[in-house]
Amino acid sequence: MKYKIRVIHGPNLNMLGNREPDKYGTSTLDEINATIESHATKTGITAHTFQSNHEGEIVDKIQQAHDSYDGLIINPAAYTHTSIAIRDAILLLEMPIVEIHLSNIYKREVFRHKSMLCDIVTGQIAGFGAYGYVMAVDAIINSLQLIKNSR
Amino acid sequence: MKYKIRVIHGPNLNMLGNREPDKYGTSTLDEINATIESHATKTGITAHTFQSNHEGEIVDKIQQAHDSYDGLIINPAAYTHTSIAIRDAILLLEMPIVEIHLSNIYKREVFRHKSMLCDIVTGQIAGFGAYGYVMAVDAIINSLQLIKNSR
Amino acid sequence: MKYKIRVIHGPNLNMLGNREPDKYGTSTLDEINATIESHATKTGITAHTFQSNHEGEIVDKIQQAHDSYDGLIINPAAYTHTSIAIRDAILLLEMPIVEIHLSNIYKREVFRHKSMLCDIVTGQIAGFGAYGYVMAVDAIINSLQLIKNSR
Amino acid sequence: MKYKIRVIHGPNLNMLGNREPDKYGTSTLDEINATIESHATKTGITAHTFQSNHEGEIVDKIQQAHDSYDGLIINPAAYTHTSIAIRDAILLLEMPIVEIHLSNIYKREVFRHKSMLCDIVTGQIAGFGAYGYVMAVDAIINSLQLIKNSR
Amino acid sequence: MKYKIRVIHGPNLNMLGNREPDKYGTSTLDEINATIESHATKTGITAHTFQSNHEGEIVDKIQQAHDSYDGLIINPAAYTHTSIAIRDAILLLEMPIVEIHLSNIYKREVFRHKSMLCDIVTGQIAGFGAYGYVMAVDAIINSLQLIKNSR
Amino acid sequence: MKYKIRVIHGPNLNMLGNREPDKYGTSTLDEINATIESHATKTGITAHTFQSNHEGEIVDKIQQAHDSYDGLIINPAAYTHTSIAIRDAILLLEMPIVEIHLSNIYKREVFRHKSMLCDIVTGQIAGFGAYGYVMAVDAIINSLQLIKNSR
Amino acid sequence: MKYKIRVIHGPNLNMLGNREPDKYGTSTLDEINATIESHATKTGITAHTFQSNHEGEIVDKIQQAHDSYDGLIINPAAYTHTSIAIRDAILLLEMPIVEIHLSNIYKREVFRHKSMLCDIVTGQIAGFGAYGYVMAVDAIINSLQLIKNSR
Amino acid sequence: MKYKIRVIHGPNLNMLGNREPDKYGTSTLDEINATIESHATKTGITAHTFQSNHEGEIVDKIQQAHDSYDGLIINPAAYTHTSIAIRDAILLLEMPIVEIHLSNIYKREVFRHKSMLCDIVTGQIAGFGAYGYVMAVDAIINSLQLIKNSR
Amino acid sequence: MKYKIRVIHGPNLNMLGNREPDKYGTSTLDEINATIESHATKTGITAHTFQSNHEGEIVDKIQQAHDSYDGLIINPAAYTHTSIAIRDAILLLEMPIVEIHLSNIYKREVFRHKSMLCDIVTGQIAGFGAYGYVMAVDAIINSLQLIKNSR
Amino acid sequence: MKYKIRVIHGPNLNMLGNREPDKYGTSTLDEINATIESHATKTGITAHTFQSNHEGEIVDKIQQAHDSYDGLIINPAAYTHTSIAIRDAILLLEMPIVEIHLSNIYKREVFRHKSMLCDIVTGQIAGFGAYGYVMAVDAIINSLQLIKNSR
Amino acid sequence: MKYKIRVIHGPNLNMLGNREPDKYGTSTLDEINATIESHATKTGITAHTFQSNHEGEIVDKIQQAHDSYDGLIINPAAYTHTSIAIRDAILLLEMPIVEIHLSNIYKREVFRHKSMLCDIVTGQIAGFGAYGYVMAVDAIINSLQLIKNSR
Amino acid sequence: MKYKIRVIHGPNLNMLGNREPDKYGTSTLDEINATIESHATKTGITAHTFQSNHEGEIVDKIQQAHDSYDGLIINPAAYTHTSIAIRDAILLLEMPIVEIHLSNIYKREVFRHKSMLCDIVTGQIAGFGAYGYVMAVDAIINSLQLIKNSR
Repeated sequence: MKYKIRVIHGPNLNMLGNREPDKYGTSTLDEINATIESHATKTGITAHTFQSNHEGEIVDKIQQAHDSYDGLIINPAAYTHTSIAIRDAILLLEMPIVEIHLSNIYKREVFRHKSMLCDIVTGQIAGFGAYGYVMAVDAIINSLQLIKNSR
Repeated sequence: MKYKIRVIHGPNLNMLGNREPDKYGTSTLDEINATIESHATKTGITAHTFQSNHEGEIVDKIQQAHDSYDGLIINPAAYTHTSIAIRDAILLLEMPIVEIHLSNIYKREVFRHKSMLCDIVTGQIAGFGAYGYVMAVDAIINSLQLIKNSR
Repeated sequence: MKYKIRVIHGPNLNMLGNREPDKYGTSTLDEINATIESHATKTGITAHTFQSNHEGEIVDKIQQAHDSYDGLIINPAAYTHTSIAIRDAILLLEMPIVEIHLSNIYKREVFRHKSMLCDIVTGQIAGFGAYGYVMAVDAIINSLQLIKNSR
Repeated sequence: MKYKIRVIHGPNLNMLGNREPDKYGTSTLDEINATIESHATKTGITAHTFQSNHEGEIVDKIQQAHDSYDGLIINPAAYTHTSIAIRDAILLLEMPIVEIHLSNIYKREVFRHKSMLCDIVTGQIAGFGAYGYVMAVDAIINSLQLIKNSR
Repeated sequence: MKYKIRVIHGPNLNMLGNREPDKYGTSTLDEINATIESHATKTGITAHTFQSNHEGEIVDKIQQAHDSYDGLIINPAAYTHTSIAIRDAILLLEMPIVEIHLSNIYKREVFRHKSMLCDIVTGQIAGFGAYGYVMAVDAIINSLQLIKNSR
Repeated sequence: MKYKIRVIHGPNLNMLGNREPDKYGTSTLDEINATIESHATKTGITAHTFQSNHEGEIVDKIQQAHDSYDGLIINPAAYTHTSIAIRDAILLLEMPIVEIHLSNIYKREVFRHKSMLCDIVTGQIAGFGAYGYVMAVDAIINSLQLIKNSR
Repeated sequence: MKYKIRVIHGPNLNMLGNREPDKYGTSTLDEINATIESHATKTGITAHTFQSNHEGEIVDKIQQAHDSYDGLIINPAAYTHTSIAIRDAILLLEMPIVEIHLSNIYKREVFRHKSMLCDIVTGQIAGFGAYGYVMAVDAIINSLQLIKNSR
Repeated sequence: MKYKIRVIHGPNLNMLGNREPDKYGTSTLDEINATIESHATKTGITAHTFQSNHEGEIVDKIQQAHDSYDGLIINPAAYTHTSIAIRDAILLLEMPIVEIHLSNIYKREVFRHKSMLCDIVTGQIAGFGAYGYVMAVDAIINSLQLIKNSR
Repeated sequence: MKYKIRVIHGPNLNMLGNREPDKYGTSTLDEINATIESHATKTGITAHTFQSNHEGEIVDKIQQAHDSYDGLIINPAAYTHTSIAIRDAILLLEMPIVEIHLSNIYKREVFRHKSMLCDIVTGQIAGFGAYGYVMAVDAIINSLQLIKNSR
Repeated sequence: MKYKIRVIHGPNLNMLGNREPDKYGTSTLDEINATIESHATKTGITAHTFQSNHEGEIVDKIQQAHDSYDGLIINPAAYTHTSIAIRDAILLLEMPIVEIHLSNIYKREVFRHKSMLCDIVTGQIAGFGAYGYVMAVDAIINSLQLIKNSR
Repeated sequence: MKYKIRVIHGPNLNMLGNREPDKYGTSTLDEINATIESHATKTGITAHTFQSNHEGEIVDKIQQAHDSYDGLIINPAAYTHTSIAIRDAILLLEMPIVEIHLSNIYKREVFRHKSMLCDIVTGQIAGFGAYGYVMAVDAIINSLQLIKNSR
Repeated sequence: MKYKIRVIHGPNLNMLGNREPDKYGTSTLDEINATIESHATKTGITAHTFQSNHEGEIVDKIQQAHDSYDGLIINPAAYTHTSIAIRDAILLLEMPIVEIHLSNIYKREVFRHKSMLCDIVTGQIAGFGAYGYVMAVDAIINSLQLIKNSR
């Protein structure tokens, strides 16, 4: 059976590629999603993407991932630094979870250095732009295989 | 005329009873709501419950409580620690308000020790699991009687 | 066999009802103790009350509770915020323990917001005046029943 | 061509004029919006107002302002102090932006002294009640003229 | 009878227009004073301006405003962040007071983010350059009218 | 009727005059008490002194002062910096209260710079050695006269 | 030979008696100076008073005290909390120095709780209003006598 | 003449051996005292032990040690972290003093990491359980011999 | 021409696989190096590995990378959190640099949450165990290609 | 044309040589000024010295340096640590500026460790007593030559 | 089989006995090592000593202790307060470990009060000079016997 | 007899002149050493230079300076901010010591603002580039002459 991965993009990521290309690159979110999906397909799994500016909707989606997905890739954007609600939703999941950031968040304002998720996810990837999502897909697959092997 | 109480449950409380039973007990939210309603009925009042993962919806509901309810029991869950919007909505209410937490929040992460509501509610109840809601109903009734007597 | 509960009142609570009625209500400590005892009797248990201005005497009493009581209700008043000795004595008890405050301590000076006990007791009740002791008795009974049922 | 200004009101501002008149004045939000619109018309521009209790909806509206408006007046209310998502949405705009508060936020709780927007807007106005919006409209127009002149 | 407004400029503002035009604009203090006075005249009031590099002289001038003026506009410049003496002098005034800054102080060094006056003035205006003084005159007049109307 | 003043000395002050004369002078506590009593007598009032190393005993004595004395002079020594219980006892008194320290506490360890009483007493005297008690007696009398005159 | 004492009053104390009588009493500075001088005369010494709003002038006056006075009473008002220059001037004096405050500074804003002088003066007196200056004169005389006796 | 050592045990140490053996070992306080006394005898000195839950009693006992003992071993338990009164009593002693803790206090709660005594005793021993008292006796003897030799 | 990558392992990583397998996995450093080298070969580049417990040797090696390598993968282990010397050496390099940690450092002691490198490297990878090095090799190659394409 | 250097001495430096020779040496300010001027003459430049206890006068003098001097040596003494007004005046200068302290400020009180100028001057010299001014003159000349050479 | 103990001395301890005898005593490191070795021999075990100024060398030596020694006595000197690398090396050992300091580190600079090892060693000894090493040897032996007995 | 000075350069200073010329100038370390040596020769003394990236080697060299040199000039570079080991080695020297930095460290990252040496050296020089070493040589000579004269 094929693994299914949920990919969640947080607030303002729908604006990617339009503005501030130095910080976030020139790819639009649609292009990034296409890359994720094609890389997933190539490695034999399925990836479903979702974006919202609403903290509550992201919480809803994470809750629903519980029964339908094998792994989660999440770029919580602005909510990374403030959302305990997203943290609590993720605490209820039992699967590999990758926290990803397009830019190196340590090169930005101090309040972006703290993540509310960092200590409860499997691992973090930051600073590699859109390519980081490809790495994240690989990391999820590797984690799922390790779990499978350890059984 | 019978007192009416609004009960509001914050984000992720819809998942109660499914996971992490050590922390939150084995009752589902539906079971807890049933307990609240039956205890309310037994003491001669009415209790209406509501849950949402969306901060904005909780603010909306608190605003609406102003004209329709005599007391508020709120478990803001993750929003306890961050939501000034919920605080501001509560500041506009003039009725007994009980802040309730299922678990003892001081046994958990440091960021859960601070409540944005604690200094503007009538009182707090924490650590008694689902039974805390029964205590909260009693506390609201007691407060309403004190107000009535002091007039 | 009937449950026995120890109720401990900390420093200056012997002055209740005489001064500062806005903050602490108009009941004297004798009246509150009478309420506690009659509520206990009504629910089929026994409650013994004790007050002291001396930290050491409170420690002594907590130590003695170990073999003679099934639950502890403690309002450590000023010692809430500073006494590690009381904390250590409580750490040695294995029974339901309720920390109670008459007023909402978060509406007062900042140094009253921190409790040295909060993370080691079963739960907290604050802000409901003398009625809080009635709630505390109910909470202890409920906790004892949960423990009994879980055996 | 006439300038168009987007005016955004944050959570609980829909309750203005009903309660706490000392802090926020007696005008309702509808009255304030009418004042803004009529002052805008008098100075030859157009102003569109919007209110929401939902952080995500405010982010959506700011994103949409990009192509349709020449300036932004925002009173983020409670979200002033916590929302990085609103900050990120505003970072993507290139137009004069005025942050406005009805009351002097420095006379209130400490957590209201910090703004997540203050360092990325054109300027701040605080403490002048509903009249502050009239000042904000004037300030936007002045800023737009300075930009035009400097080209 | 015509309203009279005192306008006080703090240290180094006598150098305006000569250096660092990006931060403070190209207007000299004389030009700004002329704008203030002409706008005041146009709105039917009188404005008297004063500048000093000496904290003590500014305190003297504020004390003297008590009997001679109806409102105060003050840009305390560097003394904004350190002068309790100026704060104390202002605490003795009973009139509308506007604190004004040419630049957005939140875009500058951290020690400029704190104002010793912010919580005792009527309101603040910051970031709108020389035009801010025009806004300040309007705000003072509006405040004086509100006071008059409320009597 | 003659005024009666209670004078309370905190822990280790019974050792005065024996050791560390640089810090505390060479007078024993008995000599200081004699000075206080004779100065009191000379000014036509009565002063009763008390010393204890026990926080609880000091709280007891302050509570008892309520009905028997017109003023309180207290040197809480080590308990100055930690005792909320003593603070609470003093909060219940309604009379002139002078906090006194023999040495200048700001020349000593940092933890001695903070007093738990300083904001609830009439005034403080520190650094004048045993003579400070004479000043304190005068200050109490002056305060009692001001209260009498203002009636 | 008669002792001579310099008395220095800091910024805004020239406004005493005119405004905020709750905080500072109803005596004007002239009345207080008259009281100081007459008490000094009565005890056989001379007191010269001085007031300024200018930090530099206060530093000048302290420097000049070195050769002309035997003791210093200083109420640095707002400069208490910020002036290292006044501290440095006082560090150069070798005589009894009393720091005095009319009100209890610990009942006011937090930034008034810290004194830049407190650890380098002989002692402090605070909270006794104008009468504190009489106490300060007595304290200086007592200190001078102790020094004389110890020689 | 034989050296005499005072050994003081702070609050809750009378409960040793009964509960929490992982943290404090299985020896009771009586057994530990027997070990101390027999080791003392073996090395030719005398050791007197004392335990109290009352801060004031411990202060009393330390004061009395001044004339009767040559060294002090103190395990202040909970009072380690808060008692300035015990610190002040110890400051008056002139003899070797060993601060001892059964467990490694750095493996416990943060508030147990700070000692109010650590900078005024001869040395500290922590983490070696009951055996630490044997080490402490040896350390006192060694210190007394060094002092004797250095004369 | 083939790309060459330098891989540097910090202190105690030579002990990998021997102890604490829960935290660091069961692979030895030799096995990890073999994996890195074989993955590098497979993707057509060369990787050279190095380990040291000495901060100075790591600084030396980073300096030497300047002329001989096209990219750097560094796991500074304990030096991550303290070494400004390593930071300064890296500041002098102009090439893609990946900071990698085997475990999720946010699940460990607080002092491990801060990295002295994080804001000057291209990106971070943490929490994916030995597989993280494979991801790091891919990330370096991707970065080198982006640089090549952008020329 | 000869270079001209302005030398500014802050508050209390006019007292040099009279008191506290351990900290500041035995040279008077006149002697130091003579040394500066003769060293300047010897190296072919001119140095003008100025001292004031008044922050405002120092600001005035710095402003005037703009058109008349090529370099500034400033020992702001007490104002080093608090004066933003002096910082702002210096920010407007475009010339080599040396901040100098006679003593090593890091051996003194903590509040003397922070300088409000340190990040905007060319360099600092501290701890070398009066000789530091000679070094400062040399440093200014060296800086002026570097600027000249780089043109 | 005889127990073997590794004793490690950190940076600058090779200078012992030459300078600052008040702080560290007059024994040289060679004399201390001789005392350790002879006390070890007397108690039937072997002790090997080592000193280095190089953090990396100390890490190397700790790693090597794993297979060759039964206990570790370490005085990390300056590295006590900063070295996470030494901490990590010690974390890999499974044997009794004593952290020892010659002087009472709490009487010295604040940055010496924190130890990077204190929470991971068996226990600490501080303030007893060279004799502390004798105590440490005894403590190691006692710990080894407890472990042996508990098997 | 000629004075001998030891000059120590810390980590990464061997890279000077190659990269980041804005921050550190274009001189290589060899050129700087040549300047130091020739200036030393010209003033009749001898200077020996040394550079290392290894903290332990720098400690070794400082220890060796004790018997062979009359003064020390040290630029500890990255170790300035973290090395207590270097501080301890310097504490054992008794000679003039100059701490020098090429750039103004207060214009750089916050962690570079703190020096572990600043309070134990004779003085500091910062911000004057390579010329600072010439100033340092002069400062050492001046200090040695002052010491000679004071004998």
